[in-house]
Amino acid sequence: MADMSLFEAMLSQRAIRRYKPDPVPDEAIAKILEAATHAPSASNRQPWHFLVVRDPELRRQLGELYWAATEYARENLGLHKENPTYVRSGYDFAQHVGEAPVLILPWVETGNGNGFSHGSNIFMAIQNLLLAARSLGLGSSYTGNIRAREDEVKALLGVPDGWTMAGLLPIGHLGEGERFGGSKRKPLTEVVSYDRWGQNNS
Amino acid sequence: MADMSLFEAMLSQRAIRRYKPDPVPDEAIAKILEAATHAPSASNRQPWHFLVVRDPELRRQLGELYWAATEYARENLGLHKENPTYVRSGYDFAQHVGEAPVLILPWVETGNGNGFSHGSNIFMAIQNLLLAARSLGLGSSYTGNIRAREDEVKALLGVPDGWTMAGLLPIGHLGEGERFGGSKRKPLTEVVSYDRWGQNNS
Repeated sequence: MADMSLFEAMLSQRAIRRYKPDPVPDEAIAKILEAATHAPSASNRQPWHFLVVRDPELRRQLGELYWAATEYARENLGLHKENPTYVRSGYDFAQHVGEAPVLILPWVETGNGNGFSHGSNIFMAIQNLLLAARSLGLGSSYTGNIRAREDEVKALLGVPDGWTMAGLLPIGHLGEGERFGGSKRKPLTEVVSYDRWGQNNS
Repeated sequence: MADMSLFEAMLSQRAIRRYKPDPVPDEAIAKILEAATHAPSASNRQPWHFLVVRDPELRRQLGELYWAATEYARENLGLHKENPTYVRSGYDFAQHVGEAPVLILPWVETGNGNGFSHGSNIFMAIQNLLLAARSLGLGSSYTGNIRAREDEVKALLGVPDGWTMAGLLPIGHLGEGERFGGSKRKPLTEVVSYDRWGQNNS
């Protein structure tokens, strides 16, 4: 399992929404974190920190904060109203995310302006983390919704100033009805141009 | 080569700065792009577009824009002054990037606010792209510097409004003195906490 091919991992990785409560071995978590820290960062500064939450009471409280952030997004920002399927699975996820045995919260040093480009310093690491989990047969998924509750999360977990929360990733064995693979993508012809925008390969 | 293990690809991927001018087969580019499009995105919207530039004159002009952006960063923002090794390899890279046989420019639909979180919609795809290239024995590296010249790039390549450039990735066979592997990382104990910030695994 640990030696799954890169392409098998990439093509079968998908967002897992339901998790078994069974614990995840320490060695698996260490391997996932090692993968994350091998992602690139600007000038190899590695301006990241990974907070691994296994304590049941902390997970319960993070789950509540995540649910509150999701409710807020629905009511005040009108998010996801256009997609009933997403709403259903997303709400189920938001209500139970704290029950996954491990929650990983990736943080990035708050940068100059902290804008779009700064995301390159943490989202590539998050992708390595997702791929590593999948190759070990563990489910995960990335969600950024909890960022609306960053201040409460920082207070709860003792996070110092100068760090920005990039999101939340539950890790665990796949729950009822979950599977890897089968995620749909647009064909390359729709999302790739050659030399100039809108031009096909020739 | 195509079946390299996930962990071998992740642990040996590194920023390649020098490229041979030899062409890269179409099938390799297609496989790299397929990998990129299998990354996650919010609600699986896939708000991305990949512009593959092989035309020598367009690459030359992109190389000039990249060099101008790097010069600007050095003179006006004081970037990288603290790291002479990075400056040397970075400048060499900036002067020759247009000579790599393929340049890929990933774009993301300009989002609400277009801030830090929006990066999750493209930087995970970029990490898949880097890993796929490495597994095929091709070098690559991500640089965001060229974003300072986004308007000129859009004019040069006919990119419509509503798209944000995430950066530039050269793709090619490894040039003189380049190799995979050996990139240094901080030990996990420095960048991971358990349950609360600063707490070790127990």
